[in-house]
Amino acid sequence: MALLTKAPRGTQDVLPGDSSKWQYVESTLLETAKLFGFQEIRIPTFEHTELFNRSVGDTTDVVQKEMYTFEDKGHRSITLRPEGTAGVVRSVLEHGLLNEALPVKACYVLSCFRYEKPQAGRLREFHQFGAEVFGPADATADAQLITMVHEILETLGVWDISLEINSIGCPKCRGAYNQLLKEYFHAHYDELCPTCQERLEKNPMRILDCKNPACAEVAKGAPKILDHICPECAEHFQKLQEYLTLAGIEFTVNPWIVRGLDYYTRTVFEFVSNNIGAQGTVCGGGRYDGLVKELGGPETPALGFAMGLERLLLVMEQCGSEFPPKSTCDLYIASRGGEAAKLAFQLTSRLVKEGYVAECDLMNRSLKAQMKYADKIGAKFSMVLGEDEIASGTAKLKNMHTGETFDLLLGDSFVEDFYSRILETVYEDLEDASNHLKP
Amino acid sequence: MALLTKAPRGTQDVLPGDSSKWQYVESTLLETAKLFGFQEIRIPTFEHTELFNRSVGDTTDVVQKEMYTFEDKGHRSITLRPEGTAGVVRSVLEHGLLNEALPVKACYVLSCFRYEKPQAGRLREFHQFGAEVFGPADATADAQLITMVHEILETLGVWDISLEINSIGCPKCRGAYNQLLKEYFHAHYDELCPTCQERLEKNPMRILDCKNPACAEVAKGAPKILDHICPECAEHFQKLQEYLTLAGIEFTVNPWIVRGLDYYTRTVFEFVSNNIGAQGTVCGGGRYDGLVKELGGPETPALGFAMGLERLLLVMEQCGSEFPPKSTCDLYIASRGGEAAKLAFQLTSRLVKEGYVAECDLMNRSLKAQMKYADKIGAKFSMVLGEDEIASGTAKLKNMHTGETFDLLLGDSFVEDFYSRILETVYEDLEDASNHLKP
Repeated sequence: MALLTKAPRGTQDVLPGDSSKWQYVESTLLETAKLFGFQEIRIPTFEHTELFNRSVGDTTDVVQKEMYTFEDKGHRSITLRPEGTAGVVRSVLEHGLLNEALPVKACYVLSCFRYEKPQAGRLREFHQFGAEVFGPADATADAQLITMVHEILETLGVWDISLEINSIGCPKCRGAYNQLLKEYFHAHYDELCPTCQERLEKNPMRILDCKNPACAEVAKGAPKILDHICPECAEHFQKLQEYLTLAGIEFTVNPWIVRGLDYYTRTVFEFVSNNIGAQGTVCGGGRYDGLVKELGGPETPALGFAMGLERLLLVMEQCGSEFPPKSTCDLYIASRGGEAAKLAFQLTSRLVKEGYVAECDLMNRSLKAQMKYADKIGAKFSMVLGEDEIASGTAKLKNMHTGETFDLLLGDSFVEDFYSRILETVYEDLEDASNHLKP
Repeated sequence: MALLTKAPRGTQDVLPGDSSKWQYVESTLLETAKLFGFQEIRIPTFEHTELFNRSVGDTTDVVQKEMYTFEDKGHRSITLRPEGTAGVVRSVLEHGLLNEALPVKACYVLSCFRYEKPQAGRLREFHQFGAEVFGPADATADAQLITMVHEILETLGVWDISLEINSIGCPKCRGAYNQLLKEYFHAHYDELCPTCQERLEKNPMRILDCKNPACAEVAKGAPKILDHICPECAEHFQKLQEYLTLAGIEFTVNPWIVRGLDYYTRTVFEFVSNNIGAQGTVCGGGRYDGLVKELGGPETPALGFAMGLERLLLVMEQCGSEFPPKSTCDLYIASRGGEAAKLAFQLTSRLVKEGYVAECDLMNRSLKAQMKYADKIGAKFSMVLGEDEIASGTAKLKNMHTGETFDLLLGDSFVEDFYSRILETVYEDLEDASNHLKP
């Protein structure tokens, strides 16, 4: 039975009591991106495996160890997306979006899948918000994308977070730099962890952000990419810094940021939380000018970022960010007897039609049990229907917060009458409740 | 390269130009469900395979032929969810939600995966909205759930749709009925399709909704479940009809509805579109009083439904349902020269901060090309910045719809001034635009 009642390891449910936080964060993300001209794109949960091998990169941990890859019944190798960018590029190319007005600006909220050791804040199915821009080569675009992340974090009440930027150059300047790196790391070969020893030939830059303390120590003395980028890349990086300053956004240059995926060029950046307990990257991104061509499209500069939503929510909690209050039941209509139950059902339907949250008994419970339920679900108002109320055509409306009661007509004007009564009473959520009435 | 630039067969992208429709439909679904007391639940994309074998049923097409089942790197058999109910039940049990206030009402929007032959309106990754209620045995709950679907379809502008209901009894009455069915179908064995010949012993009721014309012909003469349900089931079905009538909801009783999954008991229902071209079920659901126990939980009556979102959108289009207008750029700020570009970038940021959709050039384009872009993206207003505008501290704001122009100050009061100017001009989206200004 264990398999039946447990979610797979590394996955997580969002329960009804918590989902409103996710809804709030996601709608804020999408709404803020919309202001910057981004529209949502949605892509399949899985893609042909080849897409990730080519884009994320054969030498990365993600492709080598962490992908959920399997054969479908048609013997195609498919993989649950480990990140969003590859699928978005594929979609943009498949539908010819690059032939329309550039830049193309697309954003997404999606789940990603990586087979990692589950630990606090690291899941096998996790969620990302991301955005991609296709077309602009100019650093203005890099600055605007970073400005957007900054605006998002501010809107969500996240503070105590640092922006770190770097340039990792273009293929032109990186060739010579990689050569220098290899020479340096070869001289320290025995001090490196086995993974980095393997990485040395294929992708020496990845050694720079290895978490192993010994490797980190060696990396300190390594040649810095910023001392070796070409004049065009240096100018691009200079302009980015100028525009960030113009936008009033603080940043530090961190030459050790290289990002974990192969496709980045020039600008890379991370927003790093300084809050104890959630130390780490909340958002990372950069430019990937070579990826669109690599995936079979026309040469197209592009850039993007992704933000881990589980971690973002964690950081928000630690920052004491405010979440909107949960919506609770506006009116619970209790009833005694068959005829009253029918009336409760009808009045509930009428309230819902006008935009109120309304509930009645579905469990055939005693009046006492019904009132206990109304209390448990935090109903703002309640009302009891029985033979007397049906006979008189009126009932007592009770403010569950103050205990105040009001007479309420049960006839044609019931909904309007309910609205008038709740305007008369003091209630903390009054403004919210009165906003519900449709004109 | 073909694999790189094509989504896997049977999957579909939602492009930036179309996603606002999906956003509108999904938020309407969740908001309407909220009024009935439902809160969103989110479950993993995959579950242990055993969960679906036990819940959906070993004899169903879904489990036998259509599941995306594979081994993860830890040699566990996992399956991409073919539907939502099983995962929701698992989650509700795992987190002990049945120990809290009953009924538990949860709803969800998720993608499902079935390896079927792709055809119009049938995808391998498709999307569902669904809702589940745990706790109530009473038919009032069935009626309220159906009322909710009715309300949802009305809100979304779907008309020309029929509600069909049936009762398929409980295990008690179904045993005798299944025996009758077997006898009847054995007498017509040679007329049945091979699939139905196989089904005959294990699940004869499924023959009743076989799409094969020969089987359908045989089914016409079969004993009807409604003539054989026990008095308790009959009473339940009677009360459901009474409450639907009370809610003013039209329905027909269709004794051939059995639903494709094994776990249903008593009430089953479908909302069927009559629109040519999208004939078929938009929403289906019913009661599954045995499932929670089957999955290791306490005996708990429950019910739910699911709605295919691809099909719902198709039906909405055919009904001529209205979708909210797409949000477009409020102000495009064009520029000529480096200093003007910087100012454009800054003013854009300031507008976005106040809730306007604002864009500036990211492509280093000529003024002419910038204005062409502003036109393409449907900008409501535009403005050109150059040396003269910087010197004078004013620019011409242009209403792209009417061609009217206004002088606009570029200093501290820029955003407020922009707001005043757009209030002065006639614009079809004026109300919308003016609503953007944050207080």
